[in-house]
Amino acid sequence: MAKNRLTTEEFKNGILAGEKSVLSRAITLVESKSVVDRKQANELVNSILPFIGKSFRLGITGAPGVGKSTFIDGFGDFLLKKGKKVAVLAIDPSSKISGGSILGDKTRMEKLVGQPNVFIRPSPAGLELGGVAQSTLESILLCEAASYDFVVVETVGVGQSETAVKEMTDMLLFLTIAGAGDDLQGIKRGIMEMIDLVVINKSDQIEKEILGKVKSNFAQALHLFPPRAAKPNVDILSCSALNSTGFDEIWQFILDYQAKLSANGFFEENRKAQKISWMNRSLIHLVENHIQNNDNLKANVQKFETMVSDNQLSPLDAAFQIFQLLNLV
Amino acid sequence: MAKNRLTTEEFKNGILAGEKSVLSRAITLVESKSVVDRKQANELVNSILPFIGKSFRLGITGAPGVGKSTFIDGFGDFLLKKGKKVAVLAIDPSSKISGGSILGDKTRMEKLVGQPNVFIRPSPAGLELGGVAQSTLESILLCEAASYDFVVVETVGVGQSETAVKEMTDMLLFLTIAGAGDDLQGIKRGIMEMIDLVVINKSDQIEKEILGKVKSNFAQALHLFPPRAAKPNVDILSCSALNSTGFDEIWQFILDYQAKLSANGFFEENRKAQKISWMNRSLIHLVENHIQNNDNLKANVQKFETMVSDNQLSPLDAAFQIFQLLNLV
Repeated sequence: MAKNRLTTEEFKNGILAGEKSVLSRAITLVESKSVVDRKQANELVNSILPFIGKSFRLGITGAPGVGKSTFIDGFGDFLLKKGKKVAVLAIDPSSKISGGSILGDKTRMEKLVGQPNVFIRPSPAGLELGGVAQSTLESILLCEAASYDFVVVETVGVGQSETAVKEMTDMLLFLTIAGAGDDLQGIKRGIMEMIDLVVINKSDQIEKEILGKVKSNFAQALHLFPPRAAKPNVDILSCSALNSTGFDEIWQFILDYQAKLSANGFFEENRKAQKISWMNRSLIHLVENHIQNNDNLKANVQKFETMVSDNQLSPLDAAFQIFQLLNLV
Repeated sequence: MAKNRLTTEEFKNGILAGEKSVLSRAITLVESKSVVDRKQANELVNSILPFIGKSFRLGITGAPGVGKSTFIDGFGDFLLKKGKKVAVLAIDPSSKISGGSILGDKTRMEKLVGQPNVFIRPSPAGLELGGVAQSTLESILLCEAASYDFVVVETVGVGQSETAVKEMTDMLLFLTIAGAGDDLQGIKRGIMEMIDLVVINKSDQIEKEILGKVKSNFAQALHLFPPRAAKPNVDILSCSALNSTGFDEIWQFILDYQAKLSANGFFEENRKAQKISWMNRSLIHLVENHIQNNDNLKANVQKFETMVSDNQLSPLDAAFQIFQLLNLV
């Protein structure tokens, strides 16, 4: 954000006018760690808040290799043809390791790249999960202000990134493929209960019998969880993202899901609860950062951790002593 | 803790000598919210830390009606006959509502009550989950110092209480019964992945065929999760707690589990990680309490929550403003 810095007003007007270059620079602003940028980012996000809340936020997760990019490309194109504006964001804390996220290679979304009603933004490199998640949350808000109807948030599923995506989207889609046998590919502990829709991709490449078996396995697994009162039951659909088949059923599920959650008030309720959670989590994050950035506090915490590990100090007493060092008024 | 207050040294010596009345009073001390008691509780817990770490901590969860009390009574008696000392604690934040936890009705553990090598402690009433969990963690440490070989921690599964039990025990046993059909009774979202052993109780009351079907459903559900490297695979056993059948297999699983986790170092590693987590969680808890106990801060947080809900302020900016009010040095 060196020269030609836009004023907050210029940012806001550009975003509301749907100017992609301004939106892009605004996202760079919210991703910045500099104090000056952060201050303007807060101002900007607050200024666009009256204009948000009109998009549908779709989270997409799944193991590497199931075809998430191809799916987003194909289904995004399907949404475009329905007259929707589509933004694609990514939560990928591993991008700092690989030097580039999956979405960094934008050529993998051939149908979407270059389309006027599409905005694609790769995950920022060099941030840990907490930072990526925070900037993605703010990026969603900016995209909403820029009138994108669908904000697709993709995660590659590193660490707790699915939880982060779940907590900032309206619906979580789990993309998978049928494996060699009847096992479920790519399921991670704790994911199952967060899923709103299962989609088995590359359905054209597997026999109907195997597809049926995989669907029935998922159905049985999902059957273990109590029925959901506020939301439609989890469905298990299939598609071939490459051949653009199966998208109609996914679209219908999303419409039904939206309709039910809007009618029973859970859509708004969930968004409010998400915002309060984000506030509380951010506060904890700030306190943790404060400790990590203060050499004296950090050294004390490390000392206490060692003592607690070695049974020299109880965990609760150690916490109390750190709390006292924080010297809260 | 009014008159005849014991000194910390007297508490310590009584606990190490295995005096139940002193152990009981010590647990009352760690459950107390008074500042004076809390100070002595910290001293006491720190003083007994060199004597802990020799017990096996067994968490037990399951829906109401599956027979948890009967199971603990029967299996506790089985452990007693193996020459073990058994302590039973409960995490039951609902006791403040019902005015008494399940364990409060100690007569339900007919075999254990009054036995010299048994210590039973109901959940404290009038505390929220965080408080119950903290005092239970310290109670475990006190029981270990009093040479109990098995510390059984029971939860009735209210709110996040299973997570709390999981995070303070070495192994989590999920007790269930076979329902009318092939559905799995009492499974809660997010529990499945925390379970180390499934035990189907009241196996004498169901047909073998149904029992087999329930076991196979559980096996299939567990099969969805990736195999566990550090721990033995989850097993699905059955028992009749009332008739004391099936306990040998459960005992054998515990022995194998202990042996594997001791050999690969995960037992110690897990306990260390649990202690650090407790320290960090307790610190967050203290900061949250600080905010709740400060009228000015509390009012501000409520104001920010409303503004965030109504899209007048971004969650991250609200967190930043609360953080500034904390005035950390």
